[in-house]
Amino acid sequence: MAKINKDYTKLQSSYLFSTIAKKVNAYSAANPEADIIRLGIGDVTRPLTPTIIGALHSAVDEMADASTFRGYAPDLGYDFLRSAIADNDYKARGCDIDADEIFVSDGAKSDSGNIQEIFGRDNKIAVCDPVYPVYVDTNVMAGRSGSFDAATGKWSDIIYMPCTKETNFLPELPDKVPDLIYLCFPNNPSGATITKAALQEWVDYANKNGSIIIYDAAYEAYISEADIPHSIYECEGARTCAIELRSFSKNAGFTGVRLGFTVIPKDIVVEDVALHSLWARRHGTKYNGAPYIIQRAGEAVYSEAGKKEIRGLVDYYMNNASYIYNNLKAAGYEVSGGVNAPYIWLKTPDGMTSWDYFDYLLTEKNVVGTPGSGFGPSGEGYFRLTAFGDANKTIEAVNRICK
Amino acid sequence: MAKINKDYTKLQSSYLFSTIAKKVNAYSAANPEADIIRLGIGDVTRPLTPTIIGALHSAVDEMADASTFRGYAPDLGYDFLRSAIADNDYKARGCDIDADEIFVSDGAKSDSGNIQEIFGRDNKIAVCDPVYPVYVDTNVMAGRSGSFDAATGKWSDIIYMPCTKETNFLPELPDKVPDLIYLCFPNNPSGATITKAALQEWVDYANKNGSIIIYDAAYEAYISEADIPHSIYECEGARTCAIELRSFSKNAGFTGVRLGFTVIPKDIVVEDVALHSLWARRHGTKYNGAPYIIQRAGEAVYSEAGKKEIRGLVDYYMNNASYIYNNLKAAGYEVSGGVNAPYIWLKTPDGMTSWDYFDYLLTEKNVVGTPGSGFGPSGEGYFRLTAFGDANKTIEAVNRICK
Repeated sequence: MAKINKDYTKLQSSYLFSTIAKKVNAYSAANPEADIIRLGIGDVTRPLTPTIIGALHSAVDEMADASTFRGYAPDLGYDFLRSAIADNDYKARGCDIDADEIFVSDGAKSDSGNIQEIFGRDNKIAVCDPVYPVYVDTNVMAGRSGSFDAATGKWSDIIYMPCTKETNFLPELPDKVPDLIYLCFPNNPSGATITKAALQEWVDYANKNGSIIIYDAAYEAYISEADIPHSIYECEGARTCAIELRSFSKNAGFTGVRLGFTVIPKDIVVEDVALHSLWARRHGTKYNGAPYIIQRAGEAVYSEAGKKEIRGLVDYYMNNASYIYNNLKAAGYEVSGGVNAPYIWLKTPDGMTSWDYFDYLLTEKNVVGTPGSGFGPSGEGYFRLTAFGDANKTIEAVNRICK
Repeated sequence: MAKINKDYTKLQSSYLFSTIAKKVNAYSAANPEADIIRLGIGDVTRPLTPTIIGALHSAVDEMADASTFRGYAPDLGYDFLRSAIADNDYKARGCDIDADEIFVSDGAKSDSGNIQEIFGRDNKIAVCDPVYPVYVDTNVMAGRSGSFDAATGKWSDIIYMPCTKETNFLPELPDKVPDLIYLCFPNNPSGATITKAALQEWVDYANKNGSIIIYDAAYEAYISEADIPHSIYECEGARTCAIELRSFSKNAGFTGVRLGFTVIPKDIVVEDVALHSLWARRHGTKYNGAPYIIQRAGEAVYSEAGKKEIRGLVDYYMNNASYIYNNLKAAGYEVSGGVNAPYIWLKTPDGMTSWDYFDYLLTEKNVVGTPGSGFGPSGEGYFRLTAFGDANKTIEAVNRICK
């Protein structure tokens, strides 16, 4: 008699963005005339740029000819892409990362959900609170969460690191030492960033305690200020304790194209085993490589023309971020983020709960955002707006909110 | 102090095809003049067909324009593709499967490796022997295998169902009832097929015992004979006990494009939970949808022009299969498969082991095949050749072997 994975039944309601989609669809169905502006899910809206489009067309043509056709890709990614990543994202920044320490994948969501599989069930994990829900939910599914306490909104076996106004939206080193520490900077959802000196403290803490940091740098392209590290490998000692996750979704607009990568330096050894070899085995067994045509598109991101175009995309969204940030602030809202990240984090007005404010914005202003409480208990009373919308619609949405 | 997943350390050496690649690369490096013909890994060689190429180009163009750009895909797949699959692969064959029971993914390898995650660790699995290694390895990683006995080549907690000449290369209903039963027809690696009546016995057995069948139908496009089911849902009662995995790799040549799907009927309920909801949750949390442009390519497979072209690809490879089968048989080899499947399964000559024969073919004939023992202990003394090569090279390889 087959048995289900009981840990799945512990999961709380459905995935945050599914719930939002259902609410929006219901409202939209009941109010078909409503002009709803979506600043909720972190999905991009600008089209792919000419250099990327050209690379895709060219790779598609290669697939039409037997002499240039490509079947199975190398499990870990094509060398042309791994080398472009190593050179541009790491060596150019002085980070000592080799091409064969880069694992190409179909995106940072998959990687951030799958990476826990190479660790034992008995690892204690720590997450920022609020947090990208995938880190927590995949650990619940894997049996590491303990039980859920509806009163606090917390899992008994997970260490929560509150990131609120009081902590400047940054986590503090936990007293009880976690085995796996999930960090995301620039942060989703709060848009907060960490200085190199502060990140160095985390690297030192992890090395001292034998913890592993899973560092999600999906938003690094949005960093505009100096002294904010683009990679954890800018910190000394990160090669022995840190895994880094990256995405092409938010810089190059690949949310619907699907491409990302994970970096595991060969120096990370846990219980005498190189994590690099475990992840290679996982990748080789449960994954079959990213599509050739999409890896060529990824390569084009690193061409001179591609870099310039991608800069243009980021600037476009960051103009949105500034508009949201400045106008909400001027209107009296408490806001943070939005400077090195495409997310603006605001305190809900009048002590409203996050979901009450969500409903208010949806029904009164026809604007969709993301309730902070959906990201964890410390997100209660906060709300996330994204800068990924169309510029004119973003202005319209902000004007509606401020009116 | 972080801990690794110790189950990974139980895995035996590396993934079969990685080992083969290493051996071939080493031989090739030492003998750069050798004209090696690869009939080993099941990778296609014919280019994508015109209709698929057209669909890819057209979808790429949509991504270049803000008004037609697509960001995140629906987690479970676009409706246009799910409907095309339901209509063509199921309803047209009289199978009662709805579009929303189809989960689009990046391929059957990922799905066949990931599907076990929704089941508890305490499920007893049964596999055919020989078997596609991913089924076993992913269950080892998940802690369901027990210990490995090097003498027998078997895991203590896995039920092996020998498929040899003596059983007509088909499994027999096991005495000890498994919770999860992996079946693959047309079979990889042996090319064997199962009749509808024989498959019905498995469905009845599963329903009677509360077992779940994970039915890998990746090679269904190669079925040429009547009375061989293309889907397990042709059997009565399969909607309550069977999950089916499908691929676009082998029919449409998508090995480097990556697209597949899993069917979970809503009627499969285990411990009061619909497996459909568990897999939807897994897909929504650890996966972010297949790329839009590739789902459009998948849709084109079901167009009238696409179907005709794909038939041409299958015919091309099946001509290879016939050539291999007929000539090896005429040369005195014991061969099976190759009629409803792109794999030919041969008994190694002179009682050679599978790996000895691999080395012999590589070094003496410069032909690469796959050692049967790499698929399980009952594959010892067998060898797999694939029909996915170039026609002329396939003829040349067969002639070399027969000489």
